[in-house]
Amino acid sequence: MFIINPDIKNYIKDLSRKIKIEDEEIISQLERYADETDFPIINREVGLLIHLITKLKKPKLVVELGSGFGYSAYWFAKAMEDGKVVLIDYQEKNIEKAKELFEKTNLTDKAIFEVGDAVEIAKKYQNIDILFLDLEKSRYLEAIKQLENNLNQNALIIADNTLWYGNVVNPQDNKSKIVAQFNQYMFENYLSVLIPIRDGVLIAYKD
Amino acid sequence: MFIINPDIKNYIKDLSRKIKIEDEEIISQLERYADETDFPIINREVGLLIHLITKLKKPKLVVELGSGFGYSAYWFAKAMEDGKVVLIDYQEKNIEKAKELFEKTNLTDKAIFEVGDAVEIAKKYQNIDILFLDLEKSRYLEAIKQLENNLNQNALIIADNTLWYGNVVNPQDNKSKIVAQFNQYMFENYLSVLIPIRDGVLIAYKD
Repeated sequence: MFIINPDIKNYIKDLSRKIKIEDEEIISQLERYADETDFPIINREVGLLIHLITKLKKPKLVVELGSGFGYSAYWFAKAMEDGKVVLIDYQEKNIEKAKELFEKTNLTDKAIFEVGDAVEIAKKYQNIDILFLDLEKSRYLEAIKQLENNLNQNALIIADNTLWYGNVVNPQDNKSKIVAQFNQYMFENYLSVLIPIRDGVLIAYKD
Repeated sequence: MFIINPDIKNYIKDLSRKIKIEDEEIISQLERYADETDFPIINREVGLLIHLITKLKKPKLVVELGSGFGYSAYWFAKAMEDGKVVLIDYQEKNIEKAKELFEKTNLTDKAIFEVGDAVEIAKKYQNIDILFLDLEKSRYLEAIKQLENNLNQNALIIADNTLWYGNVVNPQDNKSKIVAQFNQYMFENYLSVLIPIRDGVLIAYKD
């Protein structure tokens, strides 16, 4: 099941490559590495989307649940004039790689690096302006419910993989069911949009 | 050629209906009217997207080129605390209908209504925070080029129908060629994303 018509997907991908970015070489290299090692990262199109949204939102605190090696965090941090991005991953080697990325791109002063259980660590942070969910899909609903009180007024929640390969349409397995429940919960409780790029990006605004 | 998988499209459509809006009855009625009379309006999903973007951007001045009977302008105005939306359409009967909509939804004090050539009228306005393009597709490129100096710092340009039924992928006719040229121009000059909902919504940020 494909989400977008492949021709349209390629058209948008090609357009996105026309945007000049300061760290093109470093970011391209990371994208190739993710591709080669089959490491799940948001792609360039999603990166540019969260970058644009961050420029509009002007957050002081972004908290990421499931940072991998920092690709998404790069797009947040690069759009921020001040404030911090908290990168959380349960794998120390991912966070080590994220630290390298942030050093290379001169963004270290905008980052806080954490290793461990993403939901538990995130609970320490109050007044979150953007909460980014990219942890195990079976934890999406639990994550938002446990962290709602940590959100600032007019916070954004951005969640990746909210179409889960299209499986949310007719969810059979546990992960698909939970992502579908998460989407329903978000649309019932927040001003939400589900953007069908890559694997589906949900953006929700706390009104 | 379909843009999004129809199952995904319906899934997102159904989710969008879960969001409670204050003017549900009036807006639903307008959507049905547009459907029955085959009048091109952005749909609910695109409406919610521009509504959310407007909440983040907090514009003082939104200028619409091609307002039809005010459906998109409603989503802008409803998200604004203050400031004005300028609705422009070349058909007086459309603007009359838009006036009715704004009266019914108590948004008249946020609107300026104009009838005539959209590009020429828009030129009167300086410091535009959001420029919304939904005029004849053959005028997209001309419109942005003529109005660039009227944009405020960090303005947004939002353009509807930027996939033009998918024809931009391999443009044959004049309108498709111009929309494709417009997309290329926007991605080369602005931080842009092209959201594949309905007929393609381009959102560009003046960095």
